[in-house]
Amino acid sequence: MNDSLHVLGIDIGGTKTIVAIADNNGAIIAQDRINTPREQGPSVVLASIEKALRGLITRHPLRITSIGIGCGGPLDRERGVILTAPNLPGWENLDLCEHFEGLFGVPAYLDNDVNLMALGEARYGAGIGVDYMTYFNIGTGIGGGIVIGERLYRGCGNAGEFGHQIILPDGPECTCGKHGCLESLCSGTAIARRAREYLQMPENSASLILSVARGIQAVTAHHIAEAARAGDELAQRIWRETGTYLGLGVANVISILNPRLVVLGGGVMEAGDLLMEPIRQTVQDRAMTQLAADAEIVTGRLGDQAGIVGAVSLALEGEHDEDPSRGKWIALG
Amino acid sequence: MNDSLHVLGIDIGGTKTIVAIADNNGAIIAQDRINTPREQGPSVVLASIEKALRGLITRHPLRITSIGIGCGGPLDRERGVILTAPNLPGWENLDLCEHFEGLFGVPAYLDNDVNLMALGEARYGAGIGVDYMTYFNIGTGIGGGIVIGERLYRGCGNAGEFGHQIILPDGPECTCGKHGCLESLCSGTAIARRAREYLQMPENSASLILSVARGIQAVTAHHIAEAARAGDELAQRIWRETGTYLGLGVANVISILNPRLVVLGGGVMEAGDLLMEPIRQTVQDRAMTQLAADAEIVTGRLGDQAGIVGAVSLALEGEHDEDPSRGKWIALG
Repeated sequence: MNDSLHVLGIDIGGTKTIVAIADNNGAIIAQDRINTPREQGPSVVLASIEKALRGLITRHPLRITSIGIGCGGPLDRERGVILTAPNLPGWENLDLCEHFEGLFGVPAYLDNDVNLMALGEARYGAGIGVDYMTYFNIGTGIGGGIVIGERLYRGCGNAGEFGHQIILPDGPECTCGKHGCLESLCSGTAIARRAREYLQMPENSASLILSVARGIQAVTAHHIAEAARAGDELAQRIWRETGTYLGLGVANVISILNPRLVVLGGGVMEAGDLLMEPIRQTVQDRAMTQLAADAEIVTGRLGDQAGIVGAVSLALEGEHDEDPSRGKWIALG
Repeated sequence: MNDSLHVLGIDIGGTKTIVAIADNNGAIIAQDRINTPREQGPSVVLASIEKALRGLITRHPLRITSIGIGCGGPLDRERGVILTAPNLPGWENLDLCEHFEGLFGVPAYLDNDVNLMALGEARYGAGIGVDYMTYFNIGTGIGGGIVIGERLYRGCGNAGEFGHQIILPDGPECTCGKHGCLESLCSGTAIARRAREYLQMPENSASLILSVARGIQAVTAHHIAEAARAGDELAQRIWRETGTYLGLGVANVISILNPRLVVLGGGVMEAGDLLMEPIRQTVQDRAMTQLAADAEIVTGRLGDQAGIVGAVSLALEGEHDEDPSRGKWIALG
């Protein structure tokens, strides 16, 4: 048995969950990616996560000192409780930290999955050494994270809802129940919906998107990227529009936070330059000149590992992962 | 001569400048409000500020240990230099801190005037004891400030440009050279411009605004408020629209920063409930429900004293007024 300190990380997603064991430098020693059997309810999901963790510990019999957990949905970080998880049916008021603390006898810490992606990128990815970093995750939804001096800024608990800033006051209804949010225009789901609206117009009936996706109902952001790369004009226009909307959202975050670095991650960013070019152009055209010049805009370096790396970071920090506003730092000012 | 510590504060505005002497609790012992003879260039302005300060010191012969200065315009806070000041002709690369340090033999500190209003409200006004506060100043322009744990968050140096978030992508040109910014719709100047556009329409020729202002070219936000209170429908509509735009800007800041408190100050807020009601309603209708519930929205408590109170706070903090991201706090985490 190795006596140095190690931690467990859990990144719970609606379809996949990643578990990992890492050393006290945050280096992942081993990880396992399992399906999330969400239709079978929380107890089955929790049992399969436990099984995967025990498998890791059996193969790597190391001394575990804490557990970091990332999960979506409104949660109470301080109590370690999931309030509701939109992607996980039945996860209401679930005491996730207590559950894993009981199983493994070490403290567990919980945070929003996108916050942990931001933390992962800040400490081990695109944001290493950066003082002011903001992170956008553009996937099924759009989330964000604010990292100040390598620490998460959370405000009253849920700061960084970049996807719910209002981009078009008269825009479409959003998953949050409001209107015109960035997420209602640029999430993977919203991009596909906008594409379907275009594809229903007779003048777009010859678009490559339809043949790539094999039918209008099956269209995803992935198909639109494929069609755009094959030269389809409608697909290219959809990405330009999407990048322009995203650029407005990035410009606003830049005007408000004046970051040094904006990191863009999540599945939709697989579109690459189809998105990055209009995003950067829009920021240059629309944000205040000096603030736009301060901020580099890059894609994440950790890909879909950002969340598990962040969960490991959280485990390593544990109760020390304090917000920069907390008194113990301020008192020294 | 009193041996306890005292500081000087200077709040330089385009038309008025306030100077003050305060004790080490931030209580202002005496202050003087002078005209800013800006047309006569920086040396005349600086001489009249010096004269006012020496007058204060003569009347109150106290031991001064530092000076805090607030001024508009892009500035280099760390070097204590005004880069350009849009409201002060000839103020280019002006070494303001060195100037006052040479005169009074004590350290001088400089910051953006709106940042100091935010700091003043946070420490001595509406934000006392609040962990996460944001401040909007709605006047000739629109500025903002972010206070985390009673300390200013500055990002790369110019964070809090709330007036330059984009509210209407196809909106009017802004003073910053971009389009559709909150400032281009809701600054005092923009409100008057929007009013004049309405007043040029024949159906609005009977509006009370015209008689209150004695002519379309003379219309200011103040006249529109007076007409609205007298029951003028166009004037009331202009305030509802303005409040809705401002509410979108406040909603976005809430979604991004999840503050506990949003403080609204500046001359335009003299419109009172004509603005506060549509602002609060818009935030409730448009921001994420949980985040809107976290944030109280209030008017400032210090009125036009916020800037000088902030300048005094800056003087008291001096080199200790560090950003929450600085290493000395983080290292203890």
